[in-house]
Amino acid sequence: MDTRPIGVFDSGLGGLTAVRQLLRQLPHEDIVYFGDTGRVPYGNRSPQTIRRYARQDCAFLREQGVKLIIAACGTVSSTALSVLEEQPLPAFGVVEPAADAAVRATRSGRIGVLGTAATIRSRAFEQRILSRDPSLQVVQAACPLFVPLAENGWTDREDPIPRLTAARYLAPLKEAGVDTLILGCTHFPLLTDILSDYMGQKVTLIDSGREAAAECARLLGQADLLSPAQGEGRCRFFVTDRPDDFTHVAERFLGRAIGDELQTIELDSLTGGR
Amino acid sequence: MDTRPIGVFDSGLGGLTAVRQLLRQLPHEDIVYFGDTGRVPYGNRSPQTIRRYARQDCAFLREQGVKLIIAACGTVSSTALSVLEEQPLPAFGVVEPAADAAVRATRSGRIGVLGTAATIRSRAFEQRILSRDPSLQVVQAACPLFVPLAENGWTDREDPIPRLTAARYLAPLKEAGVDTLILGCTHFPLLTDILSDYMGQKVTLIDSGREAAAECARLLGQADLLSPAQGEGRCRFFVTDRPDDFTHVAERFLGRAIGDELQTIELDSLTGGR
Repeated sequence: MDTRPIGVFDSGLGGLTAVRQLLRQLPHEDIVYFGDTGRVPYGNRSPQTIRRYARQDCAFLREQGVKLIIAACGTVSSTALSVLEEQPLPAFGVVEPAADAAVRATRSGRIGVLGTAATIRSRAFEQRILSRDPSLQVVQAACPLFVPLAENGWTDREDPIPRLTAARYLAPLKEAGVDTLILGCTHFPLLTDILSDYMGQKVTLIDSGREAAAECARLLGQADLLSPAQGEGRCRFFVTDRPDDFTHVAERFLGRAIGDELQTIELDSLTGGR
Repeated sequence: MDTRPIGVFDSGLGGLTAVRQLLRQLPHEDIVYFGDTGRVPYGNRSPQTIRRYARQDCAFLREQGVKLIIAACGTVSSTALSVLEEQPLPAFGVVEPAADAAVRATRSGRIGVLGTAATIRSRAFEQRILSRDPSLQVVQAACPLFVPLAENGWTDREDPIPRLTAARYLAPLKEAGVDTLILGCTHFPLLTDILSDYMGQKVTLIDSGREAAAECARLLGQADLLSPAQGEGRCRFFVTDRPDDFTHVAERFLGRAIGDELQTIELDSLTGGR
């Protein structure tokens, strides 16, 4: 048993969709969330820069005394796996849990992967899937516009702009007949209705944040690191910038009020970037 | 006469549309461009963070020995004017030249302003326009999706996605009957055709980068700081990150090849942020 908090980080606010899943699956755990809103988005930066930022993000969470780190960011998970592996505590991203869930879910053997430009370029989801079963077929699509659409709240099911955007990105995956679709970026669950409408009800959507939360529950249970607390866990949020509409946007991702446990920290105070 | 280069900076690549205009208007001048691609975009950050980044960007250009600084970024120009004013050399942004051009151009007395969320929230264009003529009417619209559309190259005149996006943002301006429209972000000239199609040919579009370049030519001439060089000026580019598709995207904004005068510098080496 271990009362230390779970650490979660993301380039910005997308990772709050994973926190939403943690709150459901592990309601008694304390959580420390770090969102690098001063440097979001990571998805169109170089691998070197992404790894450098990820190293600083992990160092910050370690300073908060967490027992485990989740990189709730498809870009970091796929591009900076080495940074997670070098951590002196359990640390994982969204790639392995989501890829494994997709391998379990597919019947046609054709899996689609959506992500940021950096995620798709890394081929990390594809490699994980093929390492599990080389006979599977993987079709990838970079969807950079989904991030600003989600952040600006243009996600209504009937809105033609996200619908047309989804159709453009997903057409090759639909044509390839994928029956399982990984949302490889934690921003994308906000577009679930639109993605599902386009792909059809028979296609299984894999929410990478939900799978990461399930992996966290499994790991903590296995290692006897679950909190013995009975009440609702404490959830603290740290960000590197807080624009005027921050709370509104954050609560859209988290699915509930953020409360007063929010602190803005200076980017200059981050260490471990080299 | 002064052979030192002109310094231009932006949060990322949008400012290259201003460099494109400088190359036309002042072909003999040397130019140093600084694009903070490691922290782009600025438009949805807090004013404090924008000012801090702008201070670092100016310090970098000063270290390169420039004779003048242009903030070719609507967000910096409108949110961090104090940073430009505190520089020990001539420094200005896109707000004043573009607002003044709009005041000269309007006949109906109704001017529209497009910008990022931070730019519109600052009301800087509106204040400049009203300081020139309090009888004018200003209608503003924040257009955050235009930046990723331009960066991803979704700017084709017939593409329904940018067309619908433009229609949504611009409807209130069209309804208000503006006859002059300021593109208050240096990304937006890539959407000129779409904006013009929606607003109609009778509406004058003001390219804020072009007006800033004209202001630069005027200032240098007035202060006898024009370069005496006769050949084509040297153009050097510095960025804080270089993603895989960088050159392709940069050349779309610049309108020509970027050549081999491109350097990536470490964010940690920037000074003057406090």
